[in-house]
Amino acid sequence: MTRKNNRKTNEMRSIEIELGVNKHAEGSALIKFGDTHVICTASIENHVPRWMRGSNEGWITAEYGMLPRSTHERMNREAARGKQSGRTMEIQRLIGRSLRQAVNLKYLKDKTINIDCDVIQADGGTRTASISGACVALFEAIKNSHDDQRAIKEYVAAVSIGLKDGTPFLDLDYDEDSDADTDLNVVMTENGGIIEIQGTAEKNPFTKDQLDEMIMSASNGIADIVSFQKSCLS
Amino acid sequence: MTRKNNRKTNEMRSIEIELGVNKHAEGSALIKFGDTHVICTASIENHVPRWMRGSNEGWITAEYGMLPRSTHERMNREAARGKQSGRTMEIQRLIGRSLRQAVNLKYLKDKTINIDCDVIQADGGTRTASISGACVALFEAIKNSHDDQRAIKEYVAAVSIGLKDGTPFLDLDYDEDSDADTDLNVVMTENGGIIEIQGTAEKNPFTKDQLDEMIMSASNGIADIVSFQKSCLS
Amino acid sequence: MTRKNNRKTNEMRSIEIELGVNKHAEGSALIKFGDTHVICTASIENHVPRWMRGSNEGWITAEYGMLPRSTHERMNREAARGKQSGRTMEIQRLIGRSLRQAVNLKYLKDKTINIDCDVIQADGGTRTASISGACVALFEAIKNSHDDQRAIKEYVAAVSIGLKDGTPFLDLDYDEDSDADTDLNVVMTENGGIIEIQGTAEKNPFTKDQLDEMIMSASNGIADIVSFQKSCLS
Amino acid sequence: MTRKNNRKTNEMRSIEIELGVNKHAEGSALIKFGDTHVICTASIENHVPRWMRGSNEGWITAEYGMLPRSTHERMNREAARGKQSGRTMEIQRLIGRSLRQAVNLKYLKDKTINIDCDVIQADGGTRTASISGACVALFEAIKNSHDDQRAIKEYVAAVSIGLKDGTPFLDLDYDEDSDADTDLNVVMTENGGIIEIQGTAEKNPFTKDQLDEMIMSASNGIADIVSFQKSCLS
Amino acid sequence: MTRKNNRKTNEMRSIEIELGVNKHAEGSALIKFGDTHVICTASIENHVPRWMRGSNEGWITAEYGMLPRSTHERMNREAARGKQSGRTMEIQRLIGRSLRQAVNLKYLKDKTINIDCDVIQADGGTRTASISGACVALFEAIKNSHDDQRAIKEYVAAVSIGLKDGTPFLDLDYDEDSDADTDLNVVMTENGGIIEIQGTAEKNPFTKDQLDEMIMSASNGIADIVSFQKSCLS
Amino acid sequence: MTRKNNRKTNEMRSIEIELGVNKHAEGSALIKFGDTHVICTASIENHVPRWMRGSNEGWITAEYGMLPRSTHERMNREAARGKQSGRTMEIQRLIGRSLRQAVNLKYLKDKTINIDCDVIQADGGTRTASISGACVALFEAIKNSHDDQRAIKEYVAAVSIGLKDGTPFLDLDYDEDSDADTDLNVVMTENGGIIEIQGTAEKNPFTKDQLDEMIMSASNGIADIVSFQKSCLS
Repeated sequence: MTRKNNRKTNEMRSIEIELGVNKHAEGSALIKFGDTHVICTASIENHVPRWMRGSNEGWITAEYGMLPRSTHERMNREAARGKQSGRTMEIQRLIGRSLRQAVNLKYLKDKTINIDCDVIQADGGTRTASISGACVALFEAIKNSHDDQRAIKEYVAAVSIGLKDGTPFLDLDYDEDSDADTDLNVVMTENGGIIEIQGTAEKNPFTKDQLDEMIMSASNGIADIVSFQKSCLS
Repeated sequence: MTRKNNRKTNEMRSIEIELGVNKHAEGSALIKFGDTHVICTASIENHVPRWMRGSNEGWITAEYGMLPRSTHERMNREAARGKQSGRTMEIQRLIGRSLRQAVNLKYLKDKTINIDCDVIQADGGTRTASISGACVALFEAIKNSHDDQRAIKEYVAAVSIGLKDGTPFLDLDYDEDSDADTDLNVVMTENGGIIEIQGTAEKNPFTKDQLDEMIMSASNGIADIVSFQKSCLS
Repeated sequence: MTRKNNRKTNEMRSIEIELGVNKHAEGSALIKFGDTHVICTASIENHVPRWMRGSNEGWITAEYGMLPRSTHERMNREAARGKQSGRTMEIQRLIGRSLRQAVNLKYLKDKTINIDCDVIQADGGTRTASISGACVALFEAIKNSHDDQRAIKEYVAAVSIGLKDGTPFLDLDYDEDSDADTDLNVVMTENGGIIEIQGTAEKNPFTKDQLDEMIMSASNGIADIVSFQKSCLS
Repeated sequence: MTRKNNRKTNEMRSIEIELGVNKHAEGSALIKFGDTHVICTASIENHVPRWMRGSNEGWITAEYGMLPRSTHERMNREAARGKQSGRTMEIQRLIGRSLRQAVNLKYLKDKTINIDCDVIQADGGTRTASISGACVALFEAIKNSHDDQRAIKEYVAAVSIGLKDGTPFLDLDYDEDSDADTDLNVVMTENGGIIEIQGTAEKNPFTKDQLDEMIMSASNGIADIVSFQKSCLS
Repeated sequence: MTRKNNRKTNEMRSIEIELGVNKHAEGSALIKFGDTHVICTASIENHVPRWMRGSNEGWITAEYGMLPRSTHERMNREAARGKQSGRTMEIQRLIGRSLRQAVNLKYLKDKTINIDCDVIQADGGTRTASISGACVALFEAIKNSHDDQRAIKEYVAAVSIGLKDGTPFLDLDYDEDSDADTDLNVVMTENGGIIEIQGTAEKNPFTKDQLDEMIMSASNGIADIVSFQKSCLS
Repeated sequence: MTRKNNRKTNEMRSIEIELGVNKHAEGSALIKFGDTHVICTASIENHVPRWMRGSNEGWITAEYGMLPRSTHERMNREAARGKQSGRTMEIQRLIGRSLRQAVNLKYLKDKTINIDCDVIQADGGTRTASISGACVALFEAIKNSHDDQRAIKEYVAAVSIGLKDGTPFLDLDYDEDSDADTDLNVVMTENGGIIEIQGTAEKNPFTKDQLDEMIMSASNGIADIVSFQKSCLS
């Protein structure tokens, strides 16, 4: 498998992050992993979900969507169909869990931060770009607010890795993803702690050694993304 | 009512149209009326709705959506709520009707063109920006296809006009819109033919003379937009 | 285009309004524009929507429906399909906006009046008959209540006008509507103030002069309807 | 329990049936049991449900609805809520089963007759009035069509009976129904055959003897309704 | 019609009731009528529906479901379809009404008991088995609680009876049910009071004499079930 | 953390599998991981989803549900709420993907096998018990059919592992799960190939070393489950 633009197996696509792309949101970022473009916004509300009241903590929740023509073939609009797909719900739950590890909820007392990740153009890796961009939008929102800055704990980023004929490929684009034997998504903190790991054998089971190799590659990719995130916010 | 940036009562906000913003869509445009930003895509499919089969014509249909944080306060996501609001349905029906007047459907035989207008950032006039941007995306899609170019009939554009203390204000932004007594949306062809006119007295009824003044102002605004559309596609 | 019953181009169909057709509703009317029959009820509730609380005003809201066999071909029941069509929502929003101009909301403090317009038999012009009948039901409800009669501001009525080969035709029936080039709905007060104007070019764009002619014809039709409304309530 | 208008315990409310109330429907009737008013239409379609294809028979199906202000307190519109209540579904299933016994389905080959029963005003007994009126609309539709008249088998009518302090009361109005200990609905053919019997102890269980008395009273009521149906159609 | 296992026309299928099949529920029972198996649970909650507040009584409500492969052919899952069928709603309303007659609601003050009847395997008579099993689960829940034991009023049980060629058959299995001319469900108290009676002529109307015979057979069957219920709880 | 019944950190709860629990399903099993009880059925249908037609392969799909009172507190029924939760959809997608690795789809040509996993009683690990039980039901269905037995490829089983204060705990029950810092679910084949791995840091990120330990423990647990599956089917 030769990669587009002579990309190496352990090389990320070009990453771009543009801050402040939305004049209304407390925090916002447009993130690009190659041709995958996601608008991430963080919206602060002064209340928490009912089940959290009295907990002295805040909450972070996330929603995910794709524009109908973000994909190669136009998809039906979920709002028109009247329900979100299982895939959408799975991804937005993942984004929410991941971002909650980036902050200290106790310093967000009585606030909910709504993360919205909307895919403008898709070319593989929309969930990992979403998490990585949402972290920037979230931190920008906290910085812009007069809330306790200790809410910011650790940068969080995510990347996908595929296995093709036994070789791990970092940050798959859509064509590579369709062709891969295994698909692994990893979410890590800037310090290398694992937050989420989700691997699926699409064609054949994979071995523990292959998993180790993929995680190694992922952690390099995540280090690159975190550098981008940091340079972007400083 | 003094306008932001010393805008005159009969002056449009700054208009920008960026073509080809989506690598998958047959036609696409990002249109900006001031701080109102809409991504418009045109997607060609090789079939027509069931009720049109055998008609020897094509069809154009439109969908409209707003990102949850395109607005000042975050809105609930329609896909999550499980239904589109009456406002959304009203707007997408309007966009579809307007765009069908821009083309000769008989030269689109057996094709459906899906227009998607997704509001990335809203500051008033999202429906008029959507129609104006969608016309560009639509014409780009037809030009990019090998279909009969006679399908392109006339440019179509739209603008809003408000009445405040008896004075017409062209192309209202969100604050002006909230404050206006009357809200009028006009869709016209490049030759000044009226396609749609929708006026609503928000506070007090308006007179026929006031309607005439508003339409006069709208037709000037539409001429400006058409110039932009044309320069953008040529 | 010759009209049924030798009707002239600027002549309304026969209008009938029967008051008090529902023993439960605070106000009710069965209105007939020719073969279009609509039951309108006004129901007073002693609370306002959440977003209005504390405003010291009342509210008027409207819902619209068609019996499945009100139309030539039986339609599916919206309750069975599980959602209201875009057309239904558009019409009920229009009815609500129009009726709110007929009253002084500040004299309806802490009350909501629900307008229901249910089409028993349809033959074109169901939305204009609905608005015209609902005004009668609404005023009857206010009169029957012991509330402040100053809530009644102005009669409101609506009519449709079509353009066929350049000639305006007032109050289209279903066959005429299907055949028209342009369809215009106008809502006015008894004093000739314009509340809503919605015109759509079904086949070709129309000119400003044609719009003027149509509005002239509409305002005559509306004067006739208002006479009927007044004689019915006095 | 004294009844309104000195009605006797085994006496029906005044019955009225008006034929041909809808100009589009193949058959239609407005039926009144006292203040309970139901519009019944029968719509013939030239196809059968998928599961019946090839059976050489026809089908009859029914839908039921109430206008929002048919009741003392305004109810929410089922189309707006997005689903039909359990009560609605129960009633429309009952109407469909009952009407299918009124005809020979084999003489309706490849046709579906849709029965719509829409309650315009409710005062108890809407389901029994619906069945009784729908039979008339159905037979009118068959007579109006050029289909095989042998499809008409037997008149079908329905009535409610309540038990209050051990006494059966025929054809309960809303107030009586709310007050009754037991509520029984009976559907019979003109020849006294039982099609449906549904009895519910609202407060205390009832005895077999009481059931016998109620059925006796019901069969007298049904005989009266059938006389009305017949005089109406002949 | 010869019955499986040489069952007599007035003989129940083998009945089994297993108590305490769910470690979380306040009361639970697995009931078997032959091959029809239903898990019934009773869940006590310390609040009542909004409309009951202040009434000084408690409430009992019921829900019913079938596992997708409880039936001969796999059915679609109602949760996946997004709505409950009319049949489901009809049955759960019946279960709720029946069980409310088994208790004195005034001794359940401020409590709601939720009955869930889930059909694990279906072979006819799922609603009658559900009611009969739910009564046991309900009484177990009341016994296990420290609430007033006077809430327990009377055992309630249910059975189906069919008519085939004029002969009543007790407790129909699926094949018998499909073949029967008439289907009758009867719910009675241990003392023979009738709570619900629902009879439907599937093929031809039935006579009052046939109804009497069926009820006679039903009341014998119900006596058998009540014996089982009692032995199971004592 | 001391475990109930003196269970060791790397010890499974008692496993039970009962085959043939449903007389209608082609394959069925009741699996118990301690107090977690799941009914799994496999239903064979002689068609494939539309998008697979012509592929010469078969398909396996899965649905998952919980009885309302399977949990400590009664949950709302998803069929009544009208939609499946994100968690439900996530789990049923996981079950489907896992089971498709247990078979050779090419030997199931033109068949779809529907897996239903319904949780009768929940005490943690419902998704892993579902996968493990569904594999048995699936293989029984294939054995019972006259289809090509080569469709059976490899046993598949799943287990959860938690991390508490740095120690991995195998097969968490509900209390342990609520208390764990990290939750990992692993699906493997009988030969130790990894099919799915899903790890979530509930409280703090975990390290690669901790992940390795957890996977080691999981693979021992899975070996135990596979032994049970095999003894059960042979």
